[in-house]
Amino acid sequence: MNKIITYIREHRRQALDELFELLRMPTVSTETQHVPDMARCAESIAKHLQRIGMKTVEVMPTGGHPVVYADWLLAPNAPTVLIYGHYDVQPADPLDLWTTPPFEPTVRDGRIYARGACDDKGQIFAHVKAVETFLTQTGKLPVNVKFLIEGEEEIGSKHLHNFVKEQAKRLAADVIIISDNNMQQPGVPTICYGTRGLVHCQIDLQAFAKDLHSGGYGGMVDNPIRALAEMIDALKDRYGRITIPGFYDDVVQITPAEKAQFDALGVDDAEIQKETGAPAVFGEQGYTLLEQNWARPALDMNGIFGGFTGEGSKTVIPAKAMAKFTIRLVPNQDPEKILQATKEYIQRLTPPTAKVTFTGGVGGKPYITPLEHPVISHVSRVLKREFGRDPLFVRTGGSIGVVSSFDEVLHIPCVMVALSQPEGNEHSPNEYLDEDTFYMGIEISAHILNELQTWKPAR
Amino acid sequence: MNKIITYIREHRRQALDELFELLRMPTVSTETQHVPDMARCAESIAKHLQRIGMKTVEVMPTGGHPVVYADWLLAPNAPTVLIYGHYDVQPADPLDLWTTPPFEPTVRDGRIYARGACDDKGQIFAHVKAVETFLTQTGKLPVNVKFLIEGEEEIGSKHLHNFVKEQAKRLAADVIIISDNNMQQPGVPTICYGTRGLVHCQIDLQAFAKDLHSGGYGGMVDNPIRALAEMIDALKDRYGRITIPGFYDDVVQITPAEKAQFDALGVDDAEIQKETGAPAVFGEQGYTLLEQNWARPALDMNGIFGGFTGEGSKTVIPAKAMAKFTIRLVPNQDPEKILQATKEYIQRLTPPTAKVTFTGGVGGKPYITPLEHPVISHVSRVLKREFGRDPLFVRTGGSIGVVSSFDEVLHIPCVMVALSQPEGNEHSPNEYLDEDTFYMGIEISAHILNELQTWKPAR
Repeated sequence: MNKIITYIREHRRQALDELFELLRMPTVSTETQHVPDMARCAESIAKHLQRIGMKTVEVMPTGGHPVVYADWLLAPNAPTVLIYGHYDVQPADPLDLWTTPPFEPTVRDGRIYARGACDDKGQIFAHVKAVETFLTQTGKLPVNVKFLIEGEEEIGSKHLHNFVKEQAKRLAADVIIISDNNMQQPGVPTICYGTRGLVHCQIDLQAFAKDLHSGGYGGMVDNPIRALAEMIDALKDRYGRITIPGFYDDVVQITPAEKAQFDALGVDDAEIQKETGAPAVFGEQGYTLLEQNWARPALDMNGIFGGFTGEGSKTVIPAKAMAKFTIRLVPNQDPEKILQATKEYIQRLTPPTAKVTFTGGVGGKPYITPLEHPVISHVSRVLKREFGRDPLFVRTGGSIGVVSSFDEVLHIPCVMVALSQPEGNEHSPNEYLDEDTFYMGIEISAHILNELQTWKPAR
Repeated sequence: MNKIITYIREHRRQALDELFELLRMPTVSTETQHVPDMARCAESIAKHLQRIGMKTVEVMPTGGHPVVYADWLLAPNAPTVLIYGHYDVQPADPLDLWTTPPFEPTVRDGRIYARGACDDKGQIFAHVKAVETFLTQTGKLPVNVKFLIEGEEEIGSKHLHNFVKEQAKRLAADVIIISDNNMQQPGVPTICYGTRGLVHCQIDLQAFAKDLHSGGYGGMVDNPIRALAEMIDALKDRYGRITIPGFYDDVVQITPAEKAQFDALGVDDAEIQKETGAPAVFGEQGYTLLEQNWARPALDMNGIFGGFTGEGSKTVIPAKAMAKFTIRLVPNQDPEKILQATKEYIQRLTPPTAKVTFTGGVGGKPYITPLEHPVISHVSRVLKREFGRDPLFVRTGGSIGVVSSFDEVLHIPCVMVALSQPEGNEHSPNEYLDEDTFYMGIEISAHILNELQTWKPAR
């Protein structure tokens, strides 16, 4: 490994230049004007993977932006690692808040500033550079490697679930490595082992055949906005608990050990208030902030609309009102079951003065990496050795659709290893990746790949 | 009066033709494209009033559409009657629901179909034709008459309060006659004697500095839509009573006699459900529908907005949410006092997780015509004689801003006499005025003007 690490360190400049090339492509997946940039970027990554020595390389179409697939499978007795990442980025606006333009990468004060630097081009490219080093220096890889680099992560990976299903055989592996998250604290190795599931819902209330004049009817008829407010208010009790019948039945409580881990991270009210600008925090009573966000389900109103919302006043009693909300789920809640219970509850909450239409869908199941899985100890060992301390095991309150797809379809564990410092202004102006973190990421990736060759997966 | 009535009956065709001319002008006050039509219509009415013999006629500018003022003041010992009406109309769309075009008046089955036929061109024009008849046939009027015909009634008479204040001396009169309402039942003379006051309010809740990702924060922070829903729900109790402290303190209960009058009108749930399409009605418990709408205050949500309301789902916790509502007031509630109490209550209802901005204003005081006023018995006598039965005294749940302006500034009673049949599709497609009702309106107006010369107002 000395030779590998030496090579990585001697080729930092080249890795940075190549990352810059990638960062210059405005791969904003949500904007149709960038469709050509998306295709160009996928082609460019494919060519790069070919050049570094990956054996099969393909740009594969989906219903949306293409997926880049590549593999090197010449280590018959070693495990197979599927490395997932994405080349698409969030929109860059508001542009005037960027110190330097989002698609003109710049290093300032040891930080690589560019849209996508941290989320996720910098992180996936660290893995690519590690693979390149092995292939250049030894002509082979310590393990079998497959890359799956998609272009729709920032728009919900909407075509990936079907893609994974269709390509299940091709994507078969022993472990999935994802680096699309942040270290919990600076310089502290971090493995994310849990994501929440997602259910999305919409309530449409219709109270009248048409908008009414509030003079002509005010007082003798109900109001769909009022009715909707009553229903929304009824979805939680004063202790922040969700009141949908049976909602918590399948929730797995965290163990005292896991709670101790959470508590050790010490996130406090002041920190969340500072991050969000909230005058006060509020969540399910009896749980800490991290428990509320990582290990407890949540119901969040996403939008509401009804009646007259322009300037001034209009004396209308609207015919209808609408609200959208999402529910984040934790193990072992079943999204389909929760969706059904929510639908029934919403129907029950609807007053006799309105007719309700409930629509909803499942966005993914909750996921927990089996921490007792041997692959975890292999990765942990590497992280401990390189950082000089045990990795932190964290969860996220978010839902990574592709993780639950991998779990459902491929049935293999997913290890989410952060190759980014704690905060990188992801999704915001002045996104950055610490230059040192990028270089360290390449070394970490190399060490993990090297370490995994000693792992004998049970097949 | 025989000569007068005979003349009116012999000139029906001419009156109808002239009304058609007025109805052809698309005086939609809310649409800027019709500004020239508004000016043209005001000029045309002014010319007409001049031609029929009104002495002073003026098109007077306001901050918006002009007001037509005219007077004939040559009856020094008779009372002065101010006749108010409006030449503006509601928008005509959806156009495809009209059987004949809204601005091409047509008589079908004894009904004059056109936008404004009933609201209010047909009703105000009946008064104009009555005045014309006296002037043509007798060279004078039985009473002094002032016309005030405005162009902004359908957009809240927003410039009229100041206009009335500035022109208070000029508008001085002994009684105001308004015909901008409907008979309660077909062929039954109807005087409206009460309007509700109006207060409008807006709540803006800010919970965060920016929209948050519901994955990153869901569970550990509150949500401004949820908070707003809780506040809205708290504005009324389960019995439909408004919970603003002190809200009902000044409400005058209706007398048993007034209640008996309401009850005699016999409006029932089925009727309101049919009119509105509501699956069920709901209002303040313990009161009948007409009491709820006419004699009890009401709080109506007019609009709500927050977060993502587009197609599909977005996992956002919005930074803010907003709602608008209006409160209808009854005697003797004071709008300023209610506005202040509402503001304080909203501030108290705001949870610590959000900051509130409350904005509000007064749209008018509640108004009750003093029924014991001698002018009422004069008008009632006419109606009873002409219709063969006692007039119905009704209230409205609406707020006629100009009525409270007249009351506040001019301190004279306002008699609202319906010259339209019960339903005329006002504000809807296929608006109409019964042809016979239009002709009868001219006669009623003539009888009222004639009758009022025997009234000696206390000055």
